[in-house]
Amino acid sequence: MCEADAYLIKDGVENLLMKAVDLVEPEEGDSYRIVDIFGEQKIVKGRIKAMRLVDHKILFEPDRDPS
Amino acid sequence: MCEADAYLIKDGVENLLMKAVDLVEPEEGDSYRIVDIFGEQKIVKGRIKAMRLVDHKILFEPDRDPS
Repeated sequence: MCEADAYLIKDGVENLLMKAVDLVEPEEGDSYRIVDIFGEQKIVKGRIKAMRLVDHKILFEPDRDPS
Repeated sequence: MCEADAYLIKDGVENLLMKAVDLVEPEEGDSYRIVDIFGEQKIVKGRIKAMRLVDHKILFEPDRDPS
């Protein structure tokens, strides 16, 4: 299976949001809906920073950088 | 390997942009840089419509809907 793990980067640290993500779709208001291979879903506020599929990683970051 | 194929959807048709995409990163001006597993890269104007990793698909769509 070729799902990836989704992380939210805060202060340079990768915080795991969801493992085994299959589907990523934009939602209203700078959000994304992510759904894992079991059908569980989460809404992520923020934007995509990078996806590295061979590394199985989807990296999100908050819209506003608190630094 | 768990790369995916990138498509640009125009008029409901999936047009192949690049096969075996490893990396997807946002660029300035509503664009994305996509890089395949061989290091070839392309800039895609548009936004992400959906990613379906188990299907190995990344779907982009133009920013402005011509319909």
